Parts: sequence; structure tokens; C-alpha cells
Amino acid sequence: MSIQVPRGTQDILPGEVEKWQYIEEVAKDICKTYQYKEIRTPIFESSELFMRGVGDTTDIVQKEMYVFEDRGGRSLALRPEGTAPVVRSFVQNKMFGDPNQPVKLFYTGPMFRYERPQAGRYRQFVQFGVEALGSEDPAIDAEVISLAMQVYQKLGLKNLKLIINSLGDTESRTNHREALINHFKPRIDEFCSDCQNRLEKNPLRILDCKKDRDHELMSSAPSILDYLNDESRIYFEKVQKYLQAMDIEFVVDPTLVRGLDYYNHTAFEIMSNAEGFGAITTLCGGGRYNGLVEMIGGPATPGIGFAFSIERLLAALEAERIALPIEEALDCYFVSLGEEAKDHTVKILHELRNAGFTAERDYLDRKLKAQFKAADRHHAKFVAVLGDEELKNNKINIKNMQSGEQEEVALPEFISYLEKHIRLGGH
Amino acid sequence: MSIQVPRGTQDILPGEVEKWQYIEEVAKDICKTYQYKEIRTPIFESSELFMRGVGDTTDIVQKEMYVFEDRGGRSLALRPEGTAPVVRSFVQNKMFGDPNQPVKLFYTGPMFRYERPQAGRYRQFVQFGVEALGSEDPAIDAEVISLAMQVYQKLGLKNLKLIINSLGDTESRTNHREALINHFKPRIDEFCSDCQNRLEKNPLRILDCKKDRDHELMSSAPSILDYLNDESRIYFEKVQKYLQAMDIEFVVDPTLVRGLDYYNHTAFEIMSNAEGFGAITTLCGGGRYNGLVEMIGGPATPGIGFAFSIERLLAALEAERIALPIEEALDCYFVSLGEEAKDHTVKILHELRNAGFTAERDYLDRKLKAQFKAADRHHAKFVAVLGDEELKNNKINIKNMQSGEQEEVALPEFISYLEKHIRLGGH
Repeated sequence: MSIQVPRGTQDILPGEVEKWQYIEEVAKDICKTYQYKEIRTPIFESSELFMRGVGDTTDIVQKEMYVFEDRGGRSLALRPEGTAPVVRSFVQNKMFGDPNQPVKLFYTGPMFRYERPQAGRYRQFVQFGVEALGSEDPAIDAEVISLAMQVYQKLGLKNLKLIINSLGDTESRTNHREALINHFKPRIDEFCSDCQNRLEKNPLRILDCKKDRDHELMSSAPSILDYLNDESRIYFEKVQKYLQAMDIEFVVDPTLVRGLDYYNHTAFEIMSNAEGFGAITTLCGGGRYNGLVEMIGGPATPGIGFAFSIERLLAALEAERIALPIEEALDCYFVSLGEEAKDHTVKILHELRNAGFTAERDYLDRKLKAQFKAADRHHAKFVAVLGDEELKNNKINIKNMQSGEQEEVALPEFISYLEKHIRLGGH
Repeated sequence: MSIQVPRGTQDILPGEVEKWQYIEEVAKDICKTYQYKEIRTPIFESSELFMRGVGDTTDIVQKEMYVFEDRGGRSLALRPEGTAPVVRSFVQNKMFGDPNQPVKLFYTGPMFRYERPQAGRYRQFVQFGVEALGSEDPAIDAEVISLAMQVYQKLGLKNLKLIINSLGDTESRTNHREALINHFKPRIDEFCSDCQNRLEKNPLRILDCKKDRDHELMSSAPSILDYLNDESRIYFEKVQKYLQAMDIEFVVDPTLVRGLDYYNHTAFEIMSNAEGFGAITTLCGGGRYNGLVEMIGGPATPGIGFAFSIERLLAALEAERIALPIEEALDCYFVSLGEEAKDHTVKILHELRNAGFTAERDYLDRKLKAQFKAADRHHAKFVAVLGDEELKNNKINIKNMQSGEQEEVALPEFISYLEKHIRLGGH
């Protein structure tokens, strides 16, 4: 029996992979203009990193992480997300000592979560993300948000909705937390057991509960925005002012929260409300995490970042029926007739490719007609025909597949002929 | 305590990552001219795939593979190499039915082997490889070899040595095998226990033994080249003829073997004999494997490919002291003075980046002098100075860091000024 791809994973094949390449290219180019540099961390990390950096009470760590021991008995985990590894690397490599602060990084690569596979949800998926570590200027919050928006917009997405919120600083969060406890406590027995547990530990996460979301106390819960102290309020206003300066539309949504203690100030999500999706879907999530670096063993360092999945982005492009501008044409396909001519194409083909042209020939000893068909399937711009007769006269026959024109060219002039007709747009 | 990167793995950081990007770019561009398309298979596969596709008696599978069970009890393995996954995907996706044959694929990504970490050897390393499936034309063997050579040469490596060999077809191999058994059998007790085991199972692998390599029977062992039947000999001659047609130098080395049954005909290695390496080092290995597709559950399909590690390639570049042409300059660094001017840079910076320029500013409220220093560290081509005074007059001061010239430009003309001086090479 043949072996299949592991459940919940997929192969990305030619025909589809070009979209991934295009998206990554766009994201990398944009990172370059923003001066975010790539970082590559390993596929696995010590399990402890994610217990600390994602939270050992989260579903991700408790239920979805691929954990295994290596042959030396170390507990390792396939990374379920990208921020904790980047912060681990930031600390380990003492990047906090780099004179260029903030340290601006991006990453792209596979992440792993053992979830129930469903349409568009994979156990191995690719995340692109950025992290800016070392600055608490609200302009960097706006920059990070604008970078994410820029990627989506450059790819042509139109039905985007940016929502932002502030979780405030520690003081603001403490006051809000108290207000939440006072709000829910009297009627907490009407909530699910998870929420009853959350009440004292982390009441903010009650607002995230899917079971209780329709309870009347949810919509009347105290808003964090009413508990921001002056500093946090001014910070949030600045972020909004900067987004406006960049003509980026947004909606403030006080229900957008993050459950973990080291998140603070700015939180944001980019949603798609494209008709092709059944409901509004989150494409990208991010926010400020001024406590995370310390949590992972480094010096107190502010940070902010976001991540999005390429799979979800592709689904959004499909929902909006956006065709990415992917070029597939082949410069030249060689059709050869006769043993000697066929052998000779090895040399010309090599020279042509060496000069940077995309070129192909037949490797199945196909007949003339089948070779021409192959040229069509490759969308060849030019077909070069070489028979033993032409070879004897040191010539090659070139057909422009767009215009239908045919010319006989001296073999030594073949490359410069293509230079003229392809590179200089002479056709 | 802070958490470290797992033993035997590494972070690739800015400053180093640009080399990886450059190498991948070159390799991908070359694949494009040769019409090899990217394929991305998952990081892990069912363990069985590698038992079949790499061989369950090999060190890789027995000692070095990261094997684990997922939460559903499936035995999975982090891929130790790239060929078996590509062939698995070829079979599962029925690519043998694609009208474009051979199917030409390339991949690049992390592979995993639990080995003793040493200089230049990692437990997670990156391989780049290609596979051409569906043709047994010797021209495709030559093409695959030339593609590998092309990558090394485009990167500037000079001390390269290509060695090739033929393992022949099944008949040739059977005859050679018999001759090997006859050669070693009388004195096999002088060999290590591994070799004694190999004698009947796979005598070809005796030639690979590191312990016994100086035994006098080794150099006098029968050469496969003396056992090639006519078909195999002609095949090998054609491969050599095509390499010559492409001006690719090579040495035939009959001791270059592959132990597994599904390898046949062409085998090759590219070595570096750069002085910087202690000894000659293999950079790249490849060969024909006409039996592998069937072994993995597909229809009989010829195939050939190679793989090389990027880590090893980087070591070779270093040994030859080759500096890759990596551009690091920043188009424009903004220095701002005063609250209002600083806020305004958010907008200009955004416009500049949107227009495709690389641009940066300060996010740490640094003084003027420190901002200029940061501009230097970023190798800024231009520094734009904006103070509240300039802002009031709707102007900006631009300094060309190469010539030292300074100009005051109207703010609305700022982008076109940079267009002229950077894009059109006006400085």
C-alpha cells in the first residue's frame, strides 16, 4: 500500500506553491522597507519554553502541542507558535545589548498544533510574524499594525477590518480586574465551570468564553477602556493618532482581550468580512507583551508583534477571488529531430540557462508533434527547432509562439536573438 | 534561568541570515531556468516511509531519526532527508499521470538527524535538493549534475571536484555483486563484524566501510565498471559526453557507490578541496534511483536527484573566503527634533515605505547626536532631518551621506527627490 501524508498535514505542489512564494516575497519585501530582519529558530524547542511563553494552562500547551523526548531524554516540542522562540533567541543571544534598538525581527515557517483537522485548519501550518523588541514608543505599535495591513493590501485584499483595543498597563489592568470580579461574582454560578475557575485567577478570560458568550452579564461587563489610567489612555490615543496619520481605518473594540498576564496596552486583530467566508474571520492577531521577555529569563524589555497564517491568507484571497500575478511562461522550448541534433541541444540549453533564460526540452524521445504539444503546455514564448539538417548548416529555426513568425538564425547568434526578443521586449 | 536553543540546533540571526537568503535565491533562480518547481512536504512523515525509502538497516533510520507518537498514536518521524517525502508525494498525488514528464521538483528546508553535534554538524540542518522523476534519458542525469554545479559556480566556488560513477543496471549489479563476494569471501574474517554481515546481504557496502578502508583487498576489489553490460556502459558514456558538451569537468571514480538496491546507473558527488577545509569534503551527493518509486508504492518510474546542505555550502564559501554580494544600505534614516516633527515622521515614513524605499527612524526618544549615530550604523544613504521649524515651513532637510551635500526640499517633493537620487542613480 502506498504511504499517505500524515493526517492534518498537506503537500504544497507546483501550481499552488507559486502563490506561497509570491506571498512570502511580498511579505519579505515589505519587511525590508520597514527594516525588519529575518530570524530562523529551530522547528523544535524545549517544552518548557512554551509552558512559560505561551502559558501552561492554555489549550495550546495542554492539548495541542506535539511533545516528544529526543534520544537523550530531553523533552522537546514542535513549536506551536513563533513569538516564544524569537524571544528565547533574543534573550540567549543578548540582543538587548545591540546598539540598534528596538530589535525588529520577522519569521516565516511551519508551526504545529494537534487539532481536529477541518477545512482550512491543519496540524502543520505556516505562520508569518514580526516582533519589535526594545521600544515602548506608541509609534512602534502603529508601525507593526501598518506592516500587517500593508501585506494584506499589497496582495489586493479589500474586505479588511482592523480592530484595536488597549489592555492598559499593570495598574489599569489590576483595577479592571477588580471591577470584573465584582461584576461577575454575584452570579458566577450561572456560568460554566471553566469561567468559575477563571473568576479569581484570570477574570479577563471569562470575556473570551464561547459557552457563556450570550449571558446578559457579558455585554454589560465593565470595559477596560473605563479603567485605563492617564498614562495608558494617552498611550492608546497616540497609537490611534498615528494610525490616522497613515490613513489606516480601524475600530476600537473593548471586548478584544488577551488572557495572559504579560500582555498589555495595544491589542489588535485584522479580520476579513469577504462574502466568500461564511462569517467574519480573523486573519491576523497581535499585540504588546511588555512582560514576556522577563518571563522567558531576560531583562525587562517591552515588545510587540503579530502573526498570521498563510493558509488563512490564501483562503481570504480566494474568498475575494483575487488572482495573484504569477508569471508562468517559459522563454524557450527546444524541439529536436534526429540523434545528433538532440544531443546538441544539451549544449545550447545549458548556455541559455546559464544566461538566465528559462528553457526546456524533451527527455522522453517524443515525436515532433508531441514535442510541440509539450511546448504549448509550458506556455513557451519561443520554440527553437533543431534538426540534423539545421545543425549541419549551423542554424536553428525559431518560432515566436505569440506572433506565429518563424526565423532561421545562425546558431552562434541564438542567445543574442533571444536577448533582443525577450529581454528587450522586442516582440 | 534562561532557556537555551536545543542541543545540536542553532538560531540563524540577522547578519548571518542574509547569506542563507542569498544562497536560496540563487538556487531558486537556477531551478527556474532549468524548470524545476518547488514542492513543500511536511516536516514529519509516517516513520514507515523512511524505513522503506531510506532503508530500515541504515544508521539514519536505526540511530539518528527523531521518532515520536502523535496524540492519536501514529508513529511519526521528523524527516531525516528529502527524497523519500518527495517520492511519497509524487505517488500519492499521482504525478506520474501528469502530461509533463519528467516531473522536475526542488525542495529546501530543515532535515533532522540525531547525531553527535560537532563543528558544522547540526541535528537540524537545511537541505536543498532536486528530483527529476519519469525519464531515463542520460541527458537528464547530466542536467541534474549541471544544475548542482551551476549553483556552486554562481556562488563563486572554485575548488570543486565532481566525481561520477555508474552502478549499472540490475544485471550489471548482480554480476558485480557476485564478483565482490568471490573477492572478499576467502578472507572475510580479516574484516570487521559489520563487513562480515554485509558480505552476503550487500557486499557493495563493504567498499564504504570506514574501519576496513586500508585493507589490501579494498583497492584490488573488482570495479563495477568492468561489469557494466552494454546498455549500462553506453548509458554512462552518454552521461559523460553530455557533461563534456557543457564543459563540466569530472573524474570517474569506480569506488563511489551507494549501498541500497534501488540505486542504479549514475552516482555523483561534488567535493571541495579548498585549503580552508582540513581534508577534501563532500558538499553534494546524488544519483539515479530507478527502483525507489516502486518501493514507496508507485508504478515503476525512473528517478534521479541530489541534495546538499546549506551549512556545508556556507563552510565551503568561508573556506574559499568568498564574500557574497549582500546589500545592506538603508535608503533613508529620519532624524527628528521636537514632538510635532517626530509625530509627523510617522506619516512620511509610511509613505516612503509604501513607495518601496527602505526607511527607518528612532523609537527611543534619542537625542540628535544619537539619532545621527544610528543612521551611520544603518549605513543610511540619506538622512532626512525634520524639526518643528522645518515642519512649519513644510520643508525637510536632506543630507546625502556619501557626498556630504545637504539640501532643503519641500515636503511634498520629498519622495520624488529620493526617487531621483536613489532609484535613478543620481548620486
